[in-house]
Amino acid sequence: MNTRDTLVTELNVLADFDPIIPEAYQDCKYLMLGNLAPKTQSTVINSLRKRPKLMVMDTMNFWMDVAYDDLMVTLSMVDVLSINDEEARQLSKEHSLVKAAKKIMAMGPKALIIKKGEHGALLFYENRVFFAPALPLEEVFDPTGAGDTFAGGFIGYIASKDDISFDTMKSAIIYASAMASFCVEKFGTERTINLTHEEIEERVQEFVDLVQFDIKLN
Amino acid sequence: MNTRDTLVTELNVLADFDPIIPEAYQDCKYLMLGNLAPKTQSTVINSLRKRPKLMVMDTMNFWMDVAYDDLMVTLSMVDVLSINDEEARQLSKEHSLVKAAKKIMAMGPKALIIKKGEHGALLFYENRVFFAPALPLEEVFDPTGAGDTFAGGFIGYIASKDDISFDTMKSAIIYASAMASFCVEKFGTERTINLTHEEIEERVQEFVDLVQFDIKLN
Repeated sequence: MNTRDTLVTELNVLADFDPIIPEAYQDCKYLMLGNLAPKTQSTVINSLRKRPKLMVMDTMNFWMDVAYDDLMVTLSMVDVLSINDEEARQLSKEHSLVKAAKKIMAMGPKALIIKKGEHGALLFYENRVFFAPALPLEEVFDPTGAGDTFAGGFIGYIASKDDISFDTMKSAIIYASAMASFCVEKFGTERTINLTHEEIEERVQEFVDLVQFDIKLN
Repeated sequence: MNTRDTLVTELNVLADFDPIIPEAYQDCKYLMLGNLAPKTQSTVINSLRKRPKLMVMDTMNFWMDVAYDDLMVTLSMVDVLSINDEEARQLSKEHSLVKAAKKIMAMGPKALIIKKGEHGALLFYENRVFFAPALPLEEVFDPTGAGDTFAGGFIGYIASKDDISFDTMKSAIIYASAMASFCVEKFGTERTINLTHEEIEERVQEFVDLVQFDIKLN
């Protein structure tokens, strides 16, 4: 078997994986579906007795290649999809991210996050759009885990506010970007594991300063 | 002669070009040096009887290749340099734009604009940094002239306010980005030539909406 076949076999094993939801998690209000087989993600959703207030889904190009139909099913169930710019283009077959966003949101989610790495992230929400910059860094030590840290920061902020409005999602994207900016400073979880709230607030303030301007329009 | 030799010959002719400054321009407060041979740019500066309040310079990779020493001279005379990300990397030999900015500002200008096309623009000013997003567009019809339109919008806004503070430069970058976003919608000057102030203000409002968020820090 070649590598691709091996991957697909592993995928099938993964797709048959039936995750057990601990009883304590049954009433979760906020669900973050990490980047696993779309069928595993939908199994999780279907295993919950009550629909969470907000379901956010991460995915990647690999699933678009090998599990497109499953992906479409899961996508139709969630509220927010978080992917990068290349994946948005692949999924929509559109180069323009604005056009891509329209097509992807027609597949189900009412909000779409498109991550552009060092170029920031876009949040599309119904017919509105918000842009969060990435912090210009002297050095990126290791980008591994930045996407997951971003996702965790996003849903963590929303859960802490218990609000799913566009305004709260905007702030959540800024916190998500701040958390990701810590992640890349060291290997693995080295930088994030001992972070204090004060450090996080200071970092968020840097984002505020980075984009804050004051134009008085007539 | 090959193309490169032809270009260098034309450059030498250009570099000997001695632009005549009309008397009415002698007291200009704001000088925008378009992307010409660095020697022509410094000749213009030296032909002015009085130093303008602000001198902004555009340049490109070509001059870095063929007229590096002249470029260093002109760069040491101006207040603001406007280049794109690739050019900043070439000029500084640094990949990180933060490191690049420090090196370039040590060459003379106290402010540096790094344009990143569809990914927005960074304004470095002394030890501070500001980020202006690009508007996410459905379509870019023709990017020709976007850089010049950006430059014109930048210095035009500053001249209209007659202020060269960091805060005014921040707003100027937003107006510059707004002007450039019109430029790419049609060929040449078709879109910009009949623009109304109202259309410009509406476009600037889109930039405000794009990055506006409200985080209450403790």
